[in-house]
Amino acid sequence: MAEQRSVPVKPSTRDGDDGTGLPSVTDIDTPAVIIDLDRVEANIEKLQTYLDAHGIAGRPHIKTHKLPLLAHKQVKAGAVGITVQTLGEAEVMAAAGIEDILITYNLLGEQKTRRLAALARTVPRLRVAVDNQLALDTVIAAGSMADRTIGVLVEFESGKKRQGVLEPEQALTLAKRAKKSNFVTFDGLMTYPCGPQTASFVAAARRLFTEAKIDIPVVSAGGTPEMWRAHEVEGLTEYRVGTSIYNDRHSVGVGSASFDECALHVHVTVVSLPEPDRGVIDAGSKVLTYDPLPPRYGQGHGHVLEYPEAVITSLSEEHAVVDFSACAERPRIGERLRVVPNHVCPVSNLVDEVVLHRSGVVEATVEVAARGKR
Amino acid sequence: MAEQRSVPVKPSTRDGDDGTGLPSVTDIDTPAVIIDLDRVEANIEKLQTYLDAHGIAGRPHIKTHKLPLLAHKQVKAGAVGITVQTLGEAEVMAAAGIEDILITYNLLGEQKTRRLAALARTVPRLRVAVDNQLALDTVIAAGSMADRTIGVLVEFESGKKRQGVLEPEQALTLAKRAKKSNFVTFDGLMTYPCGPQTASFVAAARRLFTEAKIDIPVVSAGGTPEMWRAHEVEGLTEYRVGTSIYNDRHSVGVGSASFDECALHVHVTVVSLPEPDRGVIDAGSKVLTYDPLPPRYGQGHGHVLEYPEAVITSLSEEHAVVDFSACAERPRIGERLRVVPNHVCPVSNLVDEVVLHRSGVVEATVEVAARGKR
Repeated sequence: MAEQRSVPVKPSTRDGDDGTGLPSVTDIDTPAVIIDLDRVEANIEKLQTYLDAHGIAGRPHIKTHKLPLLAHKQVKAGAVGITVQTLGEAEVMAAAGIEDILITYNLLGEQKTRRLAALARTVPRLRVAVDNQLALDTVIAAGSMADRTIGVLVEFESGKKRQGVLEPEQALTLAKRAKKSNFVTFDGLMTYPCGPQTASFVAAARRLFTEAKIDIPVVSAGGTPEMWRAHEVEGLTEYRVGTSIYNDRHSVGVGSASFDECALHVHVTVVSLPEPDRGVIDAGSKVLTYDPLPPRYGQGHGHVLEYPEAVITSLSEEHAVVDFSACAERPRIGERLRVVPNHVCPVSNLVDEVVLHRSGVVEATVEVAARGKR
Repeated sequence: MAEQRSVPVKPSTRDGDDGTGLPSVTDIDTPAVIIDLDRVEANIEKLQTYLDAHGIAGRPHIKTHKLPLLAHKQVKAGAVGITVQTLGEAEVMAAAGIEDILITYNLLGEQKTRRLAALARTVPRLRVAVDNQLALDTVIAAGSMADRTIGVLVEFESGKKRQGVLEPEQALTLAKRAKKSNFVTFDGLMTYPCGPQTASFVAAARRLFTEAKIDIPVVSAGGTPEMWRAHEVEGLTEYRVGTSIYNDRHSVGVGSASFDECALHVHVTVVSLPEPDRGVIDAGSKVLTYDPLPPRYGQGHGHVLEYPEAVITSLSEEHAVVDFSACAERPRIGERLRVVPNHVCPVSNLVDEVVLHRSGVVEATVEVAARGKR
């Protein structure tokens, strides 16, 4: 029976309790999203050092953490500014004093126009990426409403087949339209991800734009899997990365980070052991998410650090079933585990607060200020 | 070029604007989670009528909506109480005046003990489901701390292979332990989902418990797919359903509802049309989620009501790519669409607020009070 495996749930290890009486991360009830600040800073530094070495500007994507505190750390480390995916994220970061923001999203409609205008009044350098005329017209209207100039980047396709113009001629048409307005500046090109198509599009665009006597000051690309090869792509001036501040199982899978470089862990408790090999932990799809991981990077819905051979075989909303059959040992009911999520960005977006620590000592519990902000 | 398809984004139809000047749902900026209150009430009524006809108590699971307003509607319609999956959900519902709450989750640890004790002092009828001794001991400790009696149900396995004791003997051991305490009452058995194994386990348990002279007042099962066949399962006294208040594409797939009975829609806007057949909408995995749908119930990450042949082929965090190639018509940039999510419960959990309407006229925008509450 499961009961025979039961043990008290009190933390058996108190990483942070070195006699100072400071709170330990293991005092935080589960499920909890726990972030290693030392590792975060090392990850920020590693990226910035790489980009500096290659003369590429860094513009980290804050969709991953949604925390003004970390955005400021990124800027202080040398980033030129930040990237956001929604107006709501931009509003939170602007209110927190971030002064250079790129919104990589087509904005449409009267309400977003008004919100963008308000942002333009408060953010010293504000840019928006567009791939169609209606989205460009929103930026022009917002600039006019605010009596400010907003920067525009034209998004182009480079292998994702998501959005972005397909041909340099389309980018030129939008650039020309932008240049006719006093309320926007054409600041360059933007794409996601960063692959072989990026350089060829940029080269073709440069030829075309030169003929039209239009400068392309910025070429912004992004993506974690390709981040350490950004310097191989001819013509980039700026790189946007989200995940690398925390890293996740996907980062490890693609080889852009190691498990030691993963800064965010979901702390969970084994709440049931109906069979010796089948455990249940107290974090399901409402924390770990169903975000897919290519099977070549690992099985299941997250990586359990204490039982690396364990497989999180299925998720319910608040439960996950874990198969421990391949493990040398078995957990006990009440045991605390740490899970590296498959994809870290949506995990941040599911919790109202995260716990920041150094070497297991809690530094702060902070609100995920831009969580759910659209 | 995409621009040629562009149209102004102002709502072309104002469902709710009948000359009264009342706000229409189409005035709400996208992405937005929009709920049809008339449909919600019809869904509540339909379930309660069915359960009443068969003498089964209804105890809806509020994980789906997380709104005190709707929990009260469910109780007013005849539910004996509500089901929650987390202590945090219970705390929100208790604060909102719900007086009969079942927590279907093993609770472990000192912090949860204290929170459960506080709940026991304020909720007239509080029950907790357990499947192991440590979880039972938490309930006993909380009852003792609060000097109140908390009801206990023993969770058993009935086909889900998630948690629950495997054998009636294990349930009896826990029931006997519960009966030794003055701070808990053994109130019966609980399982999820409700399948053929449910009745056989219950029958075997009844024989065993009768021998031990222990009554089983409550046998609680749950699940949306099986809901209209609950009366066929011998021995049930109570049924728990979450999804049926809203329904979703999965409900339609399993045949427990029609698309007309889906009360929650994600309103989105087409923000990009890089190719005639490929559109991008402004709701990605951070609204629609990656929750899987068996392929026999449909392709892709949601059902687009205006373009039923469209397939939401891929998700990013804030974008979804839609293949319109099978559709007779194509949308324009700026067009507003309604998506029925594959699984509705995690959608509620991703937004801070939802919009309630009747016939397209907005009644209220309400905070999803129990969102993210663990």
